[in-house]
Amino acid sequence: MSKINYRNVVAQVMTAVRPHIGAGKVADYIPGLGEVDPGRFGFAVATVDGEVHGGGESATPFAIESISKLFALALVLHHDDRAIWKRVGREPTGDPFNSLIPLQLSRGIPGNPFVNPGAIVVTDQLLSDTGDAYGAIRELLRAETGNPQLHVDAVTAHSEETTGNRDRSLAYLVADFGNMINPVHETLDHYFRQCSIMISCEELARAALFQARHGVRADGSYLISAEDARGVNALVLTCGTYNEAGDFAYRVGLPCKSGVSGGILTIVPGRCTAVGWGPGVNEKGNSVSAAVALRAFGRLTGLSLF
Amino acid sequence: MSKINYRNVVAQVMTAVRPHIGAGKVADYIPGLGEVDPGRFGFAVATVDGEVHGGGESATPFAIESISKLFALALVLHHDDRAIWKRVGREPTGDPFNSLIPLQLSRGIPGNPFVNPGAIVVTDQLLSDTGDAYGAIRELLRAETGNPQLHVDAVTAHSEETTGNRDRSLAYLVADFGNMINPVHETLDHYFRQCSIMISCEELARAALFQARHGVRADGSYLISAEDARGVNALVLTCGTYNEAGDFAYRVGLPCKSGVSGGILTIVPGRCTAVGWGPGVNEKGNSVSAAVALRAFGRLTGLSLF
Amino acid sequence: MSKINYRNVVAQVMTAVRPHIGAGKVADYIPGLGEVDPGRFGFAVATVDGEVHGGGESATPFAIESISKLFALALVLHHDDRAIWKRVGREPTGDPFNSLIPLQLSRGIPGNPFVNPGAIVVTDQLLSDTGDAYGAIRELLRAETGNPQLHVDAVTAHSEETTGNRDRSLAYLVADFGNMINPVHETLDHYFRQCSIMISCEELARAALFQARHGVRADGSYLISAEDARGVNALVLTCGTYNEAGDFAYRVGLPCKSGVSGGILTIVPGRCTAVGWGPGVNEKGNSVSAAVALRAFGRLTGLSLF
Amino acid sequence: MSKINYRNVVAQVMTAVRPHIGAGKVADYIPGLGEVDPGRFGFAVATVDGEVHGGGESATPFAIESISKLFALALVLHHDDRAIWKRVGREPTGDPFNSLIPLQLSRGIPGNPFVNPGAIVVTDQLLSDTGDAYGAIRELLRAETGNPQLHVDAVTAHSEETTGNRDRSLAYLVADFGNMINPVHETLDHYFRQCSIMISCEELARAALFQARHGVRADGSYLISAEDARGVNALVLTCGTYNEAGDFAYRVGLPCKSGVSGGILTIVPGRCTAVGWGPGVNEKGNSVSAAVALRAFGRLTGLSLF
Repeated sequence: MSKINYRNVVAQVMTAVRPHIGAGKVADYIPGLGEVDPGRFGFAVATVDGEVHGGGESATPFAIESISKLFALALVLHHDDRAIWKRVGREPTGDPFNSLIPLQLSRGIPGNPFVNPGAIVVTDQLLSDTGDAYGAIRELLRAETGNPQLHVDAVTAHSEETTGNRDRSLAYLVADFGNMINPVHETLDHYFRQCSIMISCEELARAALFQARHGVRADGSYLISAEDARGVNALVLTCGTYNEAGDFAYRVGLPCKSGVSGGILTIVPGRCTAVGWGPGVNEKGNSVSAAVALRAFGRLTGLSLF
Repeated sequence: MSKINYRNVVAQVMTAVRPHIGAGKVADYIPGLGEVDPGRFGFAVATVDGEVHGGGESATPFAIESISKLFALALVLHHDDRAIWKRVGREPTGDPFNSLIPLQLSRGIPGNPFVNPGAIVVTDQLLSDTGDAYGAIRELLRAETGNPQLHVDAVTAHSEETTGNRDRSLAYLVADFGNMINPVHETLDHYFRQCSIMISCEELARAALFQARHGVRADGSYLISAEDARGVNALVLTCGTYNEAGDFAYRVGLPCKSGVSGGILTIVPGRCTAVGWGPGVNEKGNSVSAAVALRAFGRLTGLSLF
Repeated sequence: MSKINYRNVVAQVMTAVRPHIGAGKVADYIPGLGEVDPGRFGFAVATVDGEVHGGGESATPFAIESISKLFALALVLHHDDRAIWKRVGREPTGDPFNSLIPLQLSRGIPGNPFVNPGAIVVTDQLLSDTGDAYGAIRELLRAETGNPQLHVDAVTAHSEETTGNRDRSLAYLVADFGNMINPVHETLDHYFRQCSIMISCEELARAALFQARHGVRADGSYLISAEDARGVNALVLTCGTYNEAGDFAYRVGLPCKSGVSGGILTIVPGRCTAVGWGPGVNEKGNSVSAAVALRAFGRLTGLSLF
Repeated sequence: MSKINYRNVVAQVMTAVRPHIGAGKVADYIPGLGEVDPGRFGFAVATVDGEVHGGGESATPFAIESISKLFALALVLHHDDRAIWKRVGREPTGDPFNSLIPLQLSRGIPGNPFVNPGAIVVTDQLLSDTGDAYGAIRELLRAETGNPQLHVDAVTAHSEETTGNRDRSLAYLVADFGNMINPVHETLDHYFRQCSIMISCEELARAALFQARHGVRADGSYLISAEDARGVNALVLTCGTYNEAGDFAYRVGLPCKSGVSGGILTIVPGRCTAVGWGPGVNEKGNSVSAAVALRAFGRLTGLSLF
């Protein structure tokens, strides 16, 4: 593999994305998110060799939202790499991330860990494994980014809580089928807070590097096994952008995990991670500008898996 | 990337698969298939460098079934790489390959080219593009394998035709929504015949090498662009084994396309292809023994994408 | 029960319906129907005492369409009042009359005899019972109306046939689950013809009187038992206007069977039948003006079941 | 209409039902219900002329469960007969009473007032109309039965609350679509208590007589208009026994409202009401022995609507 000049790539990505900044619609169902300026954009790359390059608002924190699901899953696999797969599947659902329909048909076993009910089950498991699911995720992010100040945004957390009726509906359906260990409101409390952690593109790219390093953390220890890391990368590719995952695989060719606040993380196994952030999302909940950025990134670097 | 001794790998795969030969259930809804001895097994690898290695019944022809969908898609993209994406999606459906439910909800636009309705639409497009969809697929397979005798199995084709009510139901629903160009029975005639082409593991591995070579055929010409080849590999990974695709991605980490007669083809971009064949399939229509073989192949070679 | 002056009622119904004549949309998916003038309207009442009163175009023939399903069901019950209930349910589906979704979920057992797949199964049974399903329905209608000229409209029948892809999709799905006796195309041929029988409001009201007489035909013989006639009236009420049946029961309070050509038949057990016809239908396939007429009829006569 | 000897009918019903007492399965998902002896059975008839006849344990109180939905609906119509129909439909759903699927597809508008989400919406409306939904229902039942001691069963109410995850899931989904006025937990508190009111067959038959009297209460005042009473009877027929309503209409021919504790109420407009109670229910949540009793009641009296 040839040497890639990531600094140049970031600059070219910024050029490519410029006409698309502001596109999409800021998710307004979470009041704390709805007030974000849609014209913001950041991009960052972090390599397994320790390079970090940013463009635009790459150092501005935003709510991590569903990208937190990746870290929760890794922590659960760290504690026990088998138990969770009895409680959640590994298949893309073909449905929106908050659909009750496949969840009822599967009798409370969510299709995968990245749709909302699956992520709630993962947080529930992590809460049982650690006694503090939110705390465990926060500490992992602090350690991997080296930023001990990483914290939940109280406004976003409150917004999540006051607007979380769909998540409550999903969680109670899971509980009705006997697939919830902790009281629903406790698990959801952790879930809402994990989604409200504020983090920048650069930090997020660094935090996710363990997936590019096949499970190895910044301090050289294994968070999860190489086999599990490969599996998680596969899940990110097949399920990480919900019912747009097939198209992301087709057009970007890399595992991508999105959040409704406009962040999208991509992982290039063995090489690097990259994060784009633009608050405007499409009807499937994925950032329009960040998707443009990641497609440009893939094209410029030739780093498709396929 | 280190040099792999594929001859040894094939031998080790055969050892690993032995206890699983005969597992699963031979698809009996197609009479022609139901008579196949469930104890058969073959495996073959073909590399972009021209190596071909086989184990077991790697030279025994079997009905290609749904693996033909890959070749039909490539031919359609060869003729026009845009038109087909207005008629079929690129998303995993989370449903069985023959489900009417997502098709009705999407108003006749199949989720992807590998579920049955999507494949029927692809064949319909190919029939319009060429005037002879079956013939085009057969000629492609003959050319890439170098076997001018490749032919349809009349018994299987007849079986498909006499038992094809589910496919008829799907095709007429597509037609009802205005997404069929040719008369339903004509398109289905080509579709049934393309599924009944007899081909061996070794031949199939060779025939699919253009996907490992990023679109380049055996004669050095481009069948499809490198970009399209990458996209097709992504589709094979996310949709090629239906509602088990997430698990295949998680456990094998390579694009896999299965057929109900028990064949599974995998593609390692830039490196090779491999095909396992064992007639017993699971409830999702994927061969049990061939899946074991491909997992062993991935583990022994380390050739995961992730 | 007080004596009702039906002649006056018909006149008052005509007055009530006048502002609504022309409302709705003529079903244009069947070309033969699409050419009908939306401004037409007819209404007729027939009593068990032999009175017949008509208003507007009550003697103009129109395609019977789905109202034929009632006669097909009665004939099947006439031949054997048990066998059919193993092949079709008796529950409203909550879905449109041509939905594949409940049919797949129930593995080919249609929810009731009045959704299209259920009616196709009934016709299939009648074809087996009689050797000529269409002929049996036509002869029943001829006998009950006293009109030996009743016939299929060739243009409508041809239209049904050329636009019947949705019905084909439904029928092949039924066949795939093993719930079809005759070849699909033969059953559908009878089904398309039975739907294309031309009949007027007055004739239809007379033809359905056996349901008001608890199974007794014009000649005094039993077509079906009183118990079966009660059951069929119940089915007409709960399922006869598809996913608008609840609202018809709520607002009209009488069993109503509609057809997409704009006819609606109502049955008042022990008293009479009434038929309204106006070609404009709503999105659920029920005539707007005929519904207005039947609501007025119920209100003016006080003849609610409830 | 001939004079019916209801005392004899009750005796004959008891004879007919005897072999079926104990059939079905006591709903064990609500602990308070699961402890009921499955061998219990009661039956009662109340006429609009003031007769009341009981058989078996017709004076034994049991939890009213979903039969309370009828009284809640009547009270809401009493307060305002229009507003509720913007929040809930009038169609049978074809799905189980606690299904999330149609609720999500209809974007939070329940199909009818008798499936659980519809009943929760009705209680929510009644809570807004009165400030005390449970109290309003209890007072109505006390007034109509003349039993001022009617009360909630604390054990059942606690059981409902501790096992009400499915109802919570439904209610939060309704809330997510903006169709809930009061806080979900407040509405559910009233809903759980209304379902836990203890009432006997005789009391329930008397309490529901206003539906047989076309809206007129025991004291001669109108609870709802005759037109609304007819509509409610229609709804009870089409939706009162969930996805078995079609079959009840076919076989009993009268409006029936069931509860999971084993009660089934039937209404004969202008004549009487009848209630059977046997704790064993089938998989659709309807009492097996009470259904037998109501079929016998219909057959013995000839009181079918059809």
